Amino acid sequence: MDATPEPEPATEPAGEIGTCRAAVRALIAAIGPVDVDAHAAALARQDRLTKPRGALGELEVLSARLAAIAGVVPPPLPEPAAVAVFAGDHGVHAEGVSPWPQEVTAQMVANLCAGGAAVNVLARRAGARVVVVDVGVAHDVAPHAALRARRVRSGTANLRSGPAMTAHEACRALLVGAAIAAELVADGARCLVTGEMGIGNTTPAAALIAACTGRPVADVTGRGTGIDDDMWRHKVEVITDALARCGPPEDPLTLLAEVGGLEIAALAGFCLGGARSRVPVIVDGVIALAGACIAARLQPLVVDHLVAGHRSVEPGATAALELLGLTPLLDLGLRLGEGSGATLALPVVVAAAALLAEMATFDSAAVSDGPTG
Amino acid sequence: MDATPEPEPATEPAGEIGTCRAAVRALIAAIGPVDVDAHAAALARQDRLTKPRGALGELEVLSARLAAIAGVVPPPLPEPAAVAVFAGDHGVHAEGVSPWPQEVTAQMVANLCAGGAAVNVLARRAGARVVVVDVGVAHDVAPHAALRARRVRSGTANLRSGPAMTAHEACRALLVGAAIAAELVADGARCLVTGEMGIGNTTPAAALIAACTGRPVADVTGRGTGIDDDMWRHKVEVITDALARCGPPEDPLTLLAEVGGLEIAALAGFCLGGARSRVPVIVDGVIALAGACIAARLQPLVVDHLVAGHRSVEPGATAALELLGLTPLLDLGLRLGEGSGATLALPVVVAAAALLAEMATFDSAAVSDGPTG
Repeated sequence: MDATPEPEPATEPAGEIGTCRAAVRALIAAIGPVDVDAHAAALARQDRLTKPRGALGELEVLSARLAAIAGVVPPPLPEPAAVAVFAGDHGVHAEGVSPWPQEVTAQMVANLCAGGAAVNVLARRAGARVVVVDVGVAHDVAPHAALRARRVRSGTANLRSGPAMTAHEACRALLVGAAIAAELVADGARCLVTGEMGIGNTTPAAALIAACTGRPVADVTGRGTGIDDDMWRHKVEVITDALARCGPPEDPLTLLAEVGGLEIAALAGFCLGGARSRVPVIVDGVIALAGACIAARLQPLVVDHLVAGHRSVEPGATAALELLGLTPLLDLGLRLGEGSGATLALPVVVAAAALLAEMATFDSAAVSDGPTG
Repeated sequence: MDATPEPEPATEPAGEIGTCRAAVRALIAAIGPVDVDAHAAALARQDRLTKPRGALGELEVLSARLAAIAGVVPPPLPEPAAVAVFAGDHGVHAEGVSPWPQEVTAQMVANLCAGGAAVNVLARRAGARVVVVDVGVAHDVAPHAALRARRVRSGTANLRSGPAMTAHEACRALLVGAAIAAELVADGARCLVTGEMGIGNTTPAAALIAACTGRPVADVTGRGTGIDDDMWRHKVEVITDALARCGPPEDPLTLLAEVGGLEIAALAGFCLGGARSRVPVIVDGVIALAGACIAARLQPLVVDHLVAGHRSVEPGATAALELLGLTPLLDLGLRLGEGSGATLALPVVVAAAALLAEMATFDSAAVSDGPTG
C-alpha cells in the first residue's frame, strides 16, 4: 500500500492533485483481502464432485479463486460481463516506434463503437457488452452510445524527452478507470474485462514492466503490431532513454506519469475498481498487464481479484504475469490487444464457476467415490 | 487408406465380417480432401480484417481450417454442436490398472444422462447437446432419452491375455460411431465433439498410441484418474505384455481388436463419420486421440477435419497430437475425459469462425491499413 505522499511537480495545483491522490488512497483502502475460507471450501467441494480429484486442473484452481473473490461457495456465475476498452494516444509515436499512423487509434475507436473490431465479435459471442472509453485519444472522436468521453488530455507527450504526462493527469486517468468499473458493476456487470486501443502503446507498457520487474528493457520489449529488427532495436533504445531520463520512480503514479499512458493508467484504476467491487477482472495482454502491475504496486491485494485471460506473444506479458504470480488461461499466439484474449477467455471463467455450482456430487449421483470404492 | 483384406479370425462368420469391412471401406472412400482454395481464401480475408496481420495467432489458423472443411469463406459457424459420449468397459480392469470399480462406468452413464457430469455442465454453457452411447458397458444401464443403446458386447476381454474383442466387434463398434455422427449431423449438428467414459480406458488408449507412434510404452502411459507409482509400473507392464502378445498388427481394425476398446473403436468411427459429413470434429484427450490415430491409419484425410480441443496431461495425448500434427487449443491441466476439454474449447472454435465472418475490413471500417498508412 502506497500511502506516502510524493513531492508534486511544481506545475500541479497543490489542491487538485491533493484531492486526486486522496481519492486514489480511498480507492486503495476500500480493497480488502479475498475470502480464504471460501477458497478452501471451494476446493473441498471440488473433491466431492463426480470426477477424480484434481482432474479439472486449472479450472478447479480458478473456481476457488472466484469463490474467494465473491466470498461464497459456489460463487455466482461471473456474468454478465462487461468489456471496457480504454483508448489513448502516445507522444512517443513521433519516435517511430510503430508502423501504424496515429490516426488509427481514433479510427479504431469508431470501429469499436460500430461493433466491427475483434473484441466486439468475441464479446457478442460471450454475451458481454463493450464500452469504449476515450481517456486520451489525440484526434477527434465522434459521439456514440457505446463511447464514454472521459478524455484527460489529447495523447501523452513524448516519454523519451520528458514526462508523458503530469502526475495529476495520471491520477485522473486512473480514477476514470475506477469510475468506469464502478459504473459497469452498478449497471449489473458481475465480471469486468480489460480492453485498450492506442497506437504505440506497447512502448509505454514495456517501459512500465521493465521498471516494475527490474528486467532488462530488451527482455520485455516486443514487436507490438509487427515491427522489423531495426525498429525493434530503436524501440528498445527509446525505452532505455526514457527510463534513464526519469530514474527509478518509487511512486507508481509518478512512474505512470513519466513513462506510462493515459489508457494504461485507466486500466490500473479499472483493476482497482473491480477489486473494490469484489468482482473478478479478466486481464488481457501486455498493455493491461502493465496497468495491473501499477495497480499491484498501489495495492498488492488487487492481484487476488485478477484472472489472466491469456499469454500474449509480447515478452513483457510473460514478465508481468510472473511478477503478478498469475497463470494465463489461454496461450494462442495472440498479439492484438483490445481485450480480445481476455474476452476469448471469458467462457472458460464462467465454465469454472458453473462446474463448481452445477456438477453432481458422488452422493447426489450415487457414483462410487473412486479409490475408496 | 487401408483397403487390404486381412485374415479373419476363425471364430468370425466370413459373411458378416466381410459386410462390416465393406462398410468401413465405403466410409473411408466417402471422405475427400478439404478445400485448399477455401483455406487460402480464408487466410487472405484475415489480412483484410481490422487488425495487424497474424495478430489473432492460432485463431487465424483455425478459421482457415474451418473454411477448408466447409469449402466456403467465411465458413458457417460450427453450431449447434453435439457431444457424443461413447461408453465402454475393459476386461483389463481385472489387472488392477485403475483404482476405480468398474461399476463406475455404468454409474457415470446414468450421471451423464441425468446431466450431472462435467461435460454436461460445459455443454449447457456452450449450447451443445449431449448424447450418451452405450457401445460396450459391462453392467446394466437404464434407458434414458439421452442414451443410445448400441452395445456391441458387455465390455472387452482382458487384453493382456488375449484379444480385447474380435475384429468383427471392433468393426461394428467403429460403425456405431460413424452412424452416431451421421445421425447428429442429420439432426442439425454442425460440429461434433468427442466424448467417452470407461473405467480403465487409458490402458487400451496408451497401448494403441504406443503401437501407432512406435514410442516406448512408458513414454505414452500416464496416471489416468490418478494412480501411484506402483500401479503405474504395473500398467506399463500390462500394456507391454499385451503388445508383445499380439505383435505389431498392420491392420487398424486388428489392432483395435487386439488392444483397443469398444468406445475407442466408436470414437475412430465418429471421427471418420464427421469427416464424411464435412463437419469439424473437436477431439478431446488421450482416449479420443487414440481413436483419432486409428481413424488416421484408416484414412489419413480425416486429420484435416479434426480440431484438437486441448492438451491433456496424459503423455499419450501429446504423443498422439504430434503424430497427427495437431495443435491443441487449450492446455489447462485437464485429465477428466468425457469430452470435457473438447467441449470447453468449443467457444474458441466458434469464435474463430465468427471473427472471420463478422469483423470489419480496413475498407469497410475506413481504418488505415497499417504499414502502408
